[in-house]
Amino acid sequence: MISDNITRDADGTLRFAGHSADELADTFGTPLYLMDEKRIRDNCRMYLAAFREHFGENSAVLYAAKACAFKAICRIAAEEGMGLDAVSVGEIHTALEAGFPADRIYFHGDAKTDDDIRYALDRNVGCFVVDNETELEALSAETKRRSVRQKVLLRVTPGIDPHTYEAVNTGTVDVKFGVPIETGQALEFVRRALDEESLDVAGLHCHVGSEVFDEDVFERTCDVMTAFMARLRRELGYTARELDLGGGYGVRYVESDPRADIPARIGEVASHLKRILGEAGLPMPRILMEPGRSIVADAGMTVYTVCTVKHIPNCKNYVITDGGMADDPRWCLYRARYSVLHASRETGENEIFDLAGRCCESGDIVQPAVELPADTRRGDRVCVCTTGAYNYSMASNYNRLGRPPVVMLTGGSAWTAVRRETAEDLCALDL
Amino acid sequence: MISDNITRDADGTLRFAGHSADELADTFGTPLYLMDEKRIRDNCRMYLAAFREHFGENSAVLYAAKACAFKAICRIAAEEGMGLDAVSVGEIHTALEAGFPADRIYFHGDAKTDDDIRYALDRNVGCFVVDNETELEALSAETKRRSVRQKVLLRVTPGIDPHTYEAVNTGTVDVKFGVPIETGQALEFVRRALDEESLDVAGLHCHVGSEVFDEDVFERTCDVMTAFMARLRRELGYTARELDLGGGYGVRYVESDPRADIPARIGEVASHLKRILGEAGLPMPRILMEPGRSIVADAGMTVYTVCTVKHIPNCKNYVITDGGMADDPRWCLYRARYSVLHASRETGENEIFDLAGRCCESGDIVQPAVELPADTRRGDRVCVCTTGAYNYSMASNYNRLGRPPVVMLTGGSAWTAVRRETAEDLCALDL
Repeated sequence: MISDNITRDADGTLRFAGHSADELADTFGTPLYLMDEKRIRDNCRMYLAAFREHFGENSAVLYAAKACAFKAICRIAAEEGMGLDAVSVGEIHTALEAGFPADRIYFHGDAKTDDDIRYALDRNVGCFVVDNETELEALSAETKRRSVRQKVLLRVTPGIDPHTYEAVNTGTVDVKFGVPIETGQALEFVRRALDEESLDVAGLHCHVGSEVFDEDVFERTCDVMTAFMARLRRELGYTARELDLGGGYGVRYVESDPRADIPARIGEVASHLKRILGEAGLPMPRILMEPGRSIVADAGMTVYTVCTVKHIPNCKNYVITDGGMADDPRWCLYRARYSVLHASRETGENEIFDLAGRCCESGDIVQPAVELPADTRRGDRVCVCTTGAYNYSMASNYNRLGRPPVVMLTGGSAWTAVRRETAEDLCALDL
Repeated sequence: MISDNITRDADGTLRFAGHSADELADTFGTPLYLMDEKRIRDNCRMYLAAFREHFGENSAVLYAAKACAFKAICRIAAEEGMGLDAVSVGEIHTALEAGFPADRIYFHGDAKTDDDIRYALDRNVGCFVVDNETELEALSAETKRRSVRQKVLLRVTPGIDPHTYEAVNTGTVDVKFGVPIETGQALEFVRRALDEESLDVAGLHCHVGSEVFDEDVFERTCDVMTAFMARLRRELGYTARELDLGGGYGVRYVESDPRADIPARIGEVASHLKRILGEAGLPMPRILMEPGRSIVADAGMTVYTVCTVKHIPNCKNYVITDGGMADDPRWCLYRARYSVLHASRETGENEIFDLAGRCCESGDIVQPAVELPADTRRGDRVCVCTTGAYNYSMASNYNRLGRPPVVMLTGGSAWTAVRRETAEDLCALDL
């Protein structure tokens, strides 16, 4: 199995976090998002323990809420001692509603509006990650007006190509995020920020992309950032107190994906960073990282009911379910790979199917060319693994479909964290 | 201008349906979906008039609700005398709430669940478009149980390649929709359906894809369907009373897109169909078509506020707005093209920018390489044209962003048809 919280009984029953996927589908209906609470907590603890060990007690791990944000998940992240990487008023509101401490929230984003800035200042959000000079001006003006001093990190672009898929590659110069080091613009950005008395420039943020697998990506990032921090000290007399390395490590979607030993990698990054900081004569700053995908992806599974199976001779077979691109657009957007399993049987007699959804669009494919029992039929359930990240958070109402509920699995119990969206809900904003 | 409901005043003010986009943004906030009610009605009337002229009074034009469905738009379509192509309980519910007559609703979809079938039968939906044999069995069982006779069309796949983008190409054999004619499966499908006493098989449905531009696509479809109808008459003694040609014609997104003269095209299809039906000795069936995009696309415009502008020397420029892939994922999904205009000025001094959004993802681009005034800056508004179709309907809450309101423009008045989604709304389903 692609993840060790998925097992299959001798009679073929597929279990996720110990629960029968088929029985959960009977109880909660389909499509159905499942989340394994223990796995979320374990992933938080893995990062936190590795950070404490290698970067010390004052380091911090921020959960990147964009991967999956609803109240229960924010509550879990808060209880585990995580900080929060939030990118919108919606994420901040959700976290605060869940009791997340405002001072542990870092407010990201390349396009904060004046309203966003006021909202976050009103709620005493711990830190703004300032993306660009325009935001710097707007935030500086508003903090001056309020006579407050706001902690900020400055987002710079290190010019690293992390070899991940283009859409999640955020560290090269040619991206919409941050201010490039390479062009000299980042130095001016820091100089201007230091001139603002209403801003406490705690340090720097960088982000080279999610789904990082290549061994040396964070090391190369540290090289660029250390050189830049040394230059800031030399030319501006400024020493960064915090360095946020962004996030995070890749996760395994299919068997051929590499397996990242995250604690070991964090240890390697720490050794490398300590060495080069020492060589540069710089003190060790407080280190932060922002994993999202690797906190929640393998804590998720989606269960669908098969509506029909089509065999087109000499062409292709389809398993068509009651879900699709509305609840999981990742194949449509990124050609993302997934492992797909039948919920109640494993036969030797398999066929290759495209797993399609119910949207009226040919491109509505959740995963092409998956192996499923040849006798898969209407009423069967199929499970898509590793859907905890960027499924619920990217879901739409395309075709006016209500979004699935999120059912949290905690030991022997299963409870609804987000209820199913009804046809009535879909008209709630219609006047 | 890409559409004649867009004009620019001498002072640079951009107007949509006569209203200043900038003033509407001041009043309703951004991001903002605008819809030109008159244009929706004109597009409906254009199709209906052409259908009445060329296919007679009993022909029908169904609005494909998946393009954009909310209560006000369903009310407008109902008032204009359109039928409705609905693909989900959500679309049917929305239409019925708006007072849409149930008997003018055609229920489509490749994956109707038992619950969907019961819901639509409970509400006396006029016609089921049965996609496949599994659905045929399920619908037959349920109608027998209720001792009702349900009108159906049978969806067959004509095997036509409409030369449109893959994701919206639905007429070739290798798609998840319908039952292929070419493989012989469609003949068996019709034979089985005719055996079901609880089903009134009114005729056939086919759909070769949306965004059809090629002159002869519908003509070739008519050729295949006429040959198939002749075969049904010969081998099964069955004469189809209805033929639904699917939909619809393409729309212009950028100046280089062809301009389709839709009424003329409909006339050509009608002449062709009458001739080949006559040659085959078949009576003229009731003809239906299902335009969605060409009813609403050019009735829509999206207005964004610029949050920041980035100039990366020797690399690229970005205009980053308060919207993005959450309210318009079409470039991310399909590399869809759009025309983009500054809301308040047109200078000779333009630069090329990528129009990016506010989502924390490098791939969050609404449109690459658009020409905008070189001095575009924070606070300016930019307008994306022709966003009436597949924008509101595909919008997500990615990054926990609330969806924009839909403001309808009717003559001199502007009124909210769908209100803005708030941070509180986003947590409404969280338990």
